[in-house]
Amino acid sequence: MYDFIFHNPTKIIFGAKTEEQIGSELQAAGISNVLLLYGRESARKSGLLDRVIAALNGRGITFVEYGGVSSNPLLSHTREGISLARRSGVEAVVAVGGGSVLDEGKAIAVGVVAEEDIWEFFLGKEVGSALPLFTILTLAATGSEMNGNAVITNEETRQKYNIGSPHTYPRVSLLNPELTHSVSPAYSAYGAVDAVAHLIEAYFTKEAGGEATRLQDRMVEGLIKTIMEDAEAIKADPHAAGARASLMWAATLALNGLTPAGVGPYTFPNHMIEHALSALYNIAHGAGLSIVIPAWMAWYRPRNPAQFDRFAREIFKLEDGAAGIAALKEWFAQLGSPVTLAEAGIPADDLEKIAANAHGLAKRWGIGELYPPATIAEILRLA
Amino acid sequence: MYDFIFHNPTKIIFGAKTEEQIGSELQAAGISNVLLLYGRESARKSGLLDRVIAALNGRGITFVEYGGVSSNPLLSHTREGISLARRSGVEAVVAVGGGSVLDEGKAIAVGVVAEEDIWEFFLGKEVGSALPLFTILTLAATGSEMNGNAVITNEETRQKYNIGSPHTYPRVSLLNPELTHSVSPAYSAYGAVDAVAHLIEAYFTKEAGGEATRLQDRMVEGLIKTIMEDAEAIKADPHAAGARASLMWAATLALNGLTPAGVGPYTFPNHMIEHALSALYNIAHGAGLSIVIPAWMAWYRPRNPAQFDRFAREIFKLEDGAAGIAALKEWFAQLGSPVTLAEAGIPADDLEKIAANAHGLAKRWGIGELYPPATIAEILRLA
Repeated sequence: MYDFIFHNPTKIIFGAKTEEQIGSELQAAGISNVLLLYGRESARKSGLLDRVIAALNGRGITFVEYGGVSSNPLLSHTREGISLARRSGVEAVVAVGGGSVLDEGKAIAVGVVAEEDIWEFFLGKEVGSALPLFTILTLAATGSEMNGNAVITNEETRQKYNIGSPHTYPRVSLLNPELTHSVSPAYSAYGAVDAVAHLIEAYFTKEAGGEATRLQDRMVEGLIKTIMEDAEAIKADPHAAGARASLMWAATLALNGLTPAGVGPYTFPNHMIEHALSALYNIAHGAGLSIVIPAWMAWYRPRNPAQFDRFAREIFKLEDGAAGIAALKEWFAQLGSPVTLAEAGIPADDLEKIAANAHGLAKRWGIGELYPPATIAEILRLA
Repeated sequence: MYDFIFHNPTKIIFGAKTEEQIGSELQAAGISNVLLLYGRESARKSGLLDRVIAALNGRGITFVEYGGVSSNPLLSHTREGISLARRSGVEAVVAVGGGSVLDEGKAIAVGVVAEEDIWEFFLGKEVGSALPLFTILTLAATGSEMNGNAVITNEETRQKYNIGSPHTYPRVSLLNPELTHSVSPAYSAYGAVDAVAHLIEAYFTKEAGGEATRLQDRMVEGLIKTIMEDAEAIKADPHAAGARASLMWAATLALNGLTPAGVGPYTFPNHMIEHALSALYNIAHGAGLSIVIPAWMAWYRPRNPAQFDRFAREIFKLEDGAAGIAALKEWFAQLGSPVTLAEAGIPADDLEKIAANAHGLAKRWGIGELYPPATIAEILRLA
């Protein structure tokens, strides 16, 4: 195993009606005035926002509402939120929604206390501090509820970039799986794809060999098998309570730092390419990932063949790495997530443009040499 | 899944020479005077204590040394440590050793700031605060480096009791697997037994059924398989670096709250009975566990037969639960850990005395009705 630091201080409160604990958790932290961040009007229509507001009122916590966070959250909306939060003198951010809302919540929490414009941090400046963040999650997918990562899209430059910091871990995340029962079949599928994607990046791209990371491999495989079973059960019955709960916790564990701890250096090539797709075409993150992953796997397999054979064997009981990739692609497809660029309406003529955009992120992530634009275009041609 | 709270704020710094970071970690926390707690003189002879002291001196951190913690740490030694820590005005405890030293470190950290005698907390009073604890681990076994539990033996009353609190999680734990290379074959085996024991308590005693806890079962099974492989590799070569590192991290994850999160109510019957054995005969905790576990499993199996069949299949590729129990007993034996009371020199005439002692703990843990003295004696007769 490689040396590592594991430090994940987020408090997870998981279960029925946990959103009603937001008032008491803020009060216990000595916080009395917050920014209440959310996405579309569905949070209001479902009654969730009313329950959150009642919980805040019940503890005498004042708040300023700020809605309208989009999937693939935008820099302009983030900047407005920072401005509003400053004017309102809030002491914390409460993010109610899916990964997009949580990510924008992190960016606002950083921006409020920073002298620099928030985009500076997405271009590489180190985050030094942030307001405390409290989250109420409505979608099992991104893992943002238990990590320090946030992804924001700069709509002017078409850059979908990220920050990651110890200062942006949520203080408390309230996870009520019942809130995910109303998620559409498509977004339920995309969430499962996203969680699987988080798990396979380190699993395949860490140093080939693997004797020393049997434990991490087993955790990844246990999570992937569970996520796949959960997604199938949810497709059959969107109100399958056990599967909704299991998927929510599995998606959280899929990107909370646990599974890659000790595996050494690894990269995020599938996310790198997908970020270009959703920056340019605003497609759902999970949909972009199910397009990219099988193509990237086919291209990458010769670099770590034993691990692809292992994946095929452990996940699909198949003997050959190539068959495992085909099985995963088929699984994405039967779940209802696209597996080709054409399905997502992305023109084949755009490959160079996508590759150039993704290469910008590759350089930012230190993998520019492994992924020159021509290589990225080659991978995309497989999709 | 059941509702749960998961909150584990311990910072793990894992890898070579990490003990040398103790000075900088204390300094970053604003701490300048500590109690330096350790066990036997081996910590000094190996040079570890000198390196720790050099790291403290290097950051200008003053300290008072307090050695002599025994395995199965004693209440009298704990009380003396509390007295010394108070007189010295320390701001934190630095525990250098195995689980026993860490556990006594937690008890001292609680006792220093409490008005009550420390044993009151072991008898049930809730812990309200504690000094910060920093640990340098030398043995892969108890998981104390990443949880809030501590076990102390009251040598007057022959009670081996525990505390568990959010206040007693180590602030920082420095895990250097190289420090475990010199652990004896016997204690290496006991450590692996202990880690396996932590995993199976919830795995078998949670509500029978299990559909909703596939994820947790898989994590447990992945950890057990890894621990078994690691222990075998270490038995063959005590300096097997990959196995020592893997076992250290697996033992930490085996009792950090991760695997039982969401499984609902569960109990610790094997630990309950073992605590009586080591309170009365001062045997190593892992040795006591390898005696108790196969007996308890044989007795308990009819209450959750499907889970025992699953265990046999997943861990040993055997079809039948009873065969799985036999295989685990055989594995303990070949590793060099005792599997009968006779092997540990415990007289068969003492069963009633052991059962009475264990029943005291059963009542303390709320399982007194399920485990009356006659039942505990019945289980012990199987050992």
